[in-house]
Amino acid sequence: MVQLYDGERLDYLLAENNMHIIQSSEVFAFSLDAVLLAHFAYVPVKRGKILDLCTGNGVIPLLLSRRTNASMTGVEIQERLADMAKRSVELNGLENRLTMIHGDLKEMKEVLGHSTFDVVTCNPPYFPTPAKTEHNQNEHLTIARHEVYSTLEDVMKACKLHVRPGGKVAMVHRPGRLVDIMTLFRQHKIEPKRLQFVYPKHGRDANMILIEGIRDGRAALTILPPLYIYNDDNTYTTEAEGIIYGKP
Amino acid sequence: MVQLYDGERLDYLLAENNMHIIQSSEVFAFSLDAVLLAHFAYVPVKRGKILDLCTGNGVIPLLLSRRTNASMTGVEIQERLADMAKRSVELNGLENRLTMIHGDLKEMKEVLGHSTFDVVTCNPPYFPTPAKTEHNQNEHLTIARHEVYSTLEDVMKACKLHVRPGGKVAMVHRPGRLVDIMTLFRQHKIEPKRLQFVYPKHGRDANMILIEGIRDGRAALTILPPLYIYNDDNTYTTEAEGIIYGKP
Repeated sequence: MVQLYDGERLDYLLAENNMHIIQSSEVFAFSLDAVLLAHFAYVPVKRGKILDLCTGNGVIPLLLSRRTNASMTGVEIQERLADMAKRSVELNGLENRLTMIHGDLKEMKEVLGHSTFDVVTCNPPYFPTPAKTEHNQNEHLTIARHEVYSTLEDVMKACKLHVRPGGKVAMVHRPGRLVDIMTLFRQHKIEPKRLQFVYPKHGRDANMILIEGIRDGRAALTILPPLYIYNDDNTYTTEAEGIIYGKP
Repeated sequence: MVQLYDGERLDYLLAENNMHIIQSSEVFAFSLDAVLLAHFAYVPVKRGKILDLCTGNGVIPLLLSRRTNASMTGVEIQERLADMAKRSVELNGLENRLTMIHGDLKEMKEVLGHSTFDVVTCNPPYFPTPAKTEHNQNEHLTIARHEVYSTLEDVMKACKLHVRPGGKVAMVHRPGRLVDIMTLFRQHKIEPKRLQFVYPKHGRDANMILIEGIRDGRAALTILPPLYIYNDDNTYTTEAEGIIYGKP
């Protein structure tokens, strides 16, 4: 049995699944963004190496483990979260193919080597660094959501460093940063190839973007059909339900 | 009565309208792209100055004339098309507020001045320069569709030159060029602000993008609800029908 600390709870990873994940509303609980990214990202089915940056409580590699037998590595800068992630790996018996590292994505060159991963995924902090007062209210959540320790540029540098030529980088972010993302992807030779916009409902502006690029790829972008999360009556759309509760 | 030359026809500008436009299937006939851009672009209602680059037969300013009393200028590099545009202006009695110029958008600094327009619109050539053989088949259409005389970068330079600080630049293009467009917009200090994707049908990839930026604007992008053109039974969607046949 795995140790749970104060404020932690054991959630089902997804409703129809036998997998569990350790969460805590004060420290970190995964969001829809991570679920959508884990569904959107290309992964090799049988072998290969996948890296998840800003892994938090490890939700993305945990979800991906249902779709791939590749070896996976998660990197998380917050020791408390990395520890939660490690315990979730044990809990699901994934130690042989999922490694969680407590460390700074800016300093992983020696540990992980360069150009070694087939796929890099990342659900980075979305917001610029907040004022110090806000920062102090809940440091764990602040670090996960704001660019306190790593900016989007730091993240892109790490993606570029660790993905192999021809390998894929997949990210989820907010629409307001799309121009930054596209500019930084191209600047770091990760050519955007697939882009999908997530809309909360019909008739609303998009509130999430899913993007995948290929290192050293040729310029050619496909914009996928939009993904709607809720119907007008606030129930999940069939498509969202399929992703959230569906089969891998 | 306005002179029509060989192969030219007089079309209604839009079905429910009294306006006409001179077209020719061998030389130039406007497409849905132009109609969508004319609908998407912000225009001042009462006064101001609008510039349309790559104006072709003048369809965009002709359409905009229903929504604005601003003074408008169209620039077209092909003399044959600029002449069609001029005759359509006469035909609709718009000489007092719509001027068509035959000229190269790369050389309009003296003629139009810099930073003088409130809005610049452009439906530029979409495709890289074709091989010479293809080029020879129909020069008029080739020039309108391919980057023979002006690349996307030339177009952006002209937009930047002519729009005033705080003024808007609106463009229609293909999804495959979105990364180029965002990179070039930002490089030329036209910050993307509104982005809309056009899908032929539900479940298909986008085939058109509509983008509007503000010169020297702050970074903050909104991704509008998607626009679908056809229903599954190949009839126009209500929204597309509203744009194509609807009121201004």
